[in-house]
Parts: sequence; C-alpha cells; structure tokens
Amino acid sequence: MEIPIGRDILSANDALAARNRALFNENRVLVLNVMGSPGAGKTEFLVQILKILGSGFAAGIIVGDISTAADAERYDVLGLPVVQINTDRFGGDCHLGAHLIEKALGHLDLAGLDLLVIENVGNLVCPAEFDLGEDLRVVVLSIAEGEDKPVKYPLMFRECDAVVLGKMDLLPYLQYDMARVRANLDSIHPQMIRFEVSARTGAGLEIFLPWLRDQIRRKSPAR
Amino acid sequence: MEIPIGRDILSANDALAARNRALFNENRVLVLNVMGSPGAGKTEFLVQILKILGSGFAAGIIVGDISTAADAERYDVLGLPVVQINTDRFGGDCHLGAHLIEKALGHLDLAGLDLLVIENVGNLVCPAEFDLGEDLRVVVLSIAEGEDKPVKYPLMFRECDAVVLGKMDLLPYLQYDMARVRANLDSIHPQMIRFEVSARTGAGLEIFLPWLRDQIRRKSPAR
Repeated sequence: MEIPIGRDILSANDALAARNRALFNENRVLVLNVMGSPGAGKTEFLVQILKILGSGFAAGIIVGDISTAADAERYDVLGLPVVQINTDRFGGDCHLGAHLIEKALGHLDLAGLDLLVIENVGNLVCPAEFDLGEDLRVVVLSIAEGEDKPVKYPLMFRECDAVVLGKMDLLPYLQYDMARVRANLDSIHPQMIRFEVSARTGAGLEIFLPWLRDQIRRKSPAR
Repeated sequence: MEIPIGRDILSANDALAARNRALFNENRVLVLNVMGSPGAGKTEFLVQILKILGSGFAAGIIVGDISTAADAERYDVLGLPVVQINTDRFGGDCHLGAHLIEKALGHLDLAGLDLLVIENVGNLVCPAEFDLGEDLRVVVLSIAEGEDKPVKYPLMFRECDAVVLGKMDLLPYLQYDMARVRANLDSIHPQMIRFEVSARTGAGLEIFLPWLRDQIRRKSPAR
C-alpha cells in the first residue's frame, strides 16, 4: 500500500507556501503557525495572549477546524478579524494546507496587520508536514498529556521553534515530571524555545509576551 | 490540490480489514480498536483494565505509535503478548492501517486469545477513517481536553461504539461542564455507550469491565 502521491502533494503545498510567505514579507506581518493536540488549550492560550498583546499591535487570526465555528466564536471577544476554515468541506483534512491559508487571506487586510496567528487543526502529526508560509511554528503541549509526547511525535517537536507547556495550574494534581519532559525536549530539539504557562491563571504569559512583541518588531521595525 | 488516490487507499484498506476480520471471527477473538488524542490516557486506561480483566480471559495487545516503544514497555507489567508498531518506518503514518495489523498478527497466536486490544496512534482524526477489522471502536477522551471535541471531530465520535471519558479525577480542578459534553455527544451520536472513569483512582472501571467481559463472551460463548 504505497502512497506515491505524497511527495507531489507536499511539493505543491511548498510552492503555495512560498507564495504566502512572499505576501507576508511584503506586508511585514509576523505569522505564527500554532499547533498541538486536540484539547491542548491552543485557543484559550491565544485568546489570553491577544487580549494583553497591546493596542500598539494589530493582530488577525485564522483558525482551522474540521467542523464547527466554536473556536472563531471564542475569539470574538477580542474584536479582531477572524477567519474560520472548516476542513470538512475539503474532505475532513486533518491539517491546514497552504492553499487554505491563501483562500483565507482573501478575507483579511494584510497591509493593516502586524501579526497573523494561525491556529491549526488539533493534531500532533500531520500539521507539522505542511508549510503554510509562516515565520514561526509554536506547539502547545498541555501537561495533562504526559511527558512523553516530544519523543512519540518527534517531527512536530523538531519542526517547531517554540513549545508552550500549558495548563501548568494542573501540576499539583498530576503525576507529572517536569525534569522528564525537559529531558525529552532536549533529546529531540535542544535549541527549542520553551515557555511554561497557565492561560487560566495568567502565569508565564509575562514571559511569552515580550518574546512575541520582540518577534513582531524584528519583522516590522517601525513598530 | 486534489487527492484522487484517497478513495483507492481506503478501498485497499477495506479489503485487508475484511481479511483481518475473517481471521478474528474464525478464532473467536473480540477485537477492540482504541483511539483518542495524544495524551488522552489510552495506555494508562488499558493497562488498568487488562490488569483486572481476570485470569479467565487471555488478552493480547497491538500498540501503534509513530516512534518509540514507550507504550509497549508500559504494557510489559501485564506479562501479556504485546506487539509494538512504529509507523515512522512507514512514512510517519498518523494512524494504523489494516496492512500493519496484518503484519502484527504474524507475531501473535490468535487461537490462544479471547481479546485483542489495538491501541491506535494518538490522533482524533485520521484513525477513524481506517477499518482494521475490529469488532468495536472505543474513543478515550480526557476531560482535560474540554467539552467540545465530539462536535469538532465528529467522524471519530460517530464511528465509535463507545466513549470513555477519562481522567475524571481532575474534575474538581477543571472548569468542565459534564452536561455540555453529554449534550455534545447526544448531538453527534446519541446511541453511543458512555463510561466515565479515572484510571488513576480506579473509579468507573467496575462499570467498563462487566461490559467488556460481556462483549468477549458474546464473541466466544465458551468463555
């Protein structure tokens, strides 16, 4: 059972991703591709981050799900431009592809944005294979998922620039070994930037935010 | 970007799944395909279940992961036959396919088993599309993943016969609405069999186990 079309799909995607990337660079928009398991807490984390990012930065959101507009509705409180992609119209795709981002860009005014956050479909496998044209890849990993995910899903953790260890407020109630998850991250991607946050209590957001603002300013020095 | 090969892959898989199913029926082995997100708690739940299933039942395990033998090692305490499939040798597949199960069966003595548990790759999307020849599909959903997963990943919850709501011991520490998850399950698959368990405390296992033993006996009336 070979899948010879695999390589063709990936190279077609890469060509479209390069086109997206050129557009992002032209408009000096920093683009984050945020990935993670279903229920890792991607939306909650991003809502909290965007709430306190600061009025000096104009952000937009593209959110991918197989079905429902539930996540787009959760972003509504921010009053920011949000485009929801439902992949069930595209065969229930388990990831976002560059062509879907290209379509979504038709609904966003890139020239007016400093930051575009793409929340990918909840999945630790397939999204890592598809370049969307982003500047940075971030994986959100809830500590409720256990310490072994970096070694069990190595491509995701190798491909991402940063990991956000989330739901840290649950630490007292889990048998979770922080030293072990750190060692697992070291074994897969030692240079990975690491954050430990709780979107619910706000802990750790004060470390992530200056890093994010710094990344935005590097892309758009006028900010 | 069309993927015309998709249907061919699925029908090739179905033919192999039918062959597996015939073999399972011939040997009167009940086969469970257990799915769920990365970190949902599939392994921990299954280890606890198999520990107390009872010496009257002979069980075997096939466990799928992209990388590592970590889960197979966790099953070792049981002293049961375990076959680990690593899909990274097959291009990092995000799901188990019927051909991988067929290969794994070469390492198991089906005639001596009453129950075969297949723990699929952690993923709420792709595994639901691939029939392995199993009798029953079970999805493990940790309550730490939020209430919205049934509606956001509808195929998985439509395809599964039973859902195990896991990590129930975390309920006091989460803002989790049991009524909402039940309503979401109702909207997608009202006939779905539902269990609420904590593998850590053992709560709820006393409900799942009689159900499982009953399913085994239906398949193999001599038990």
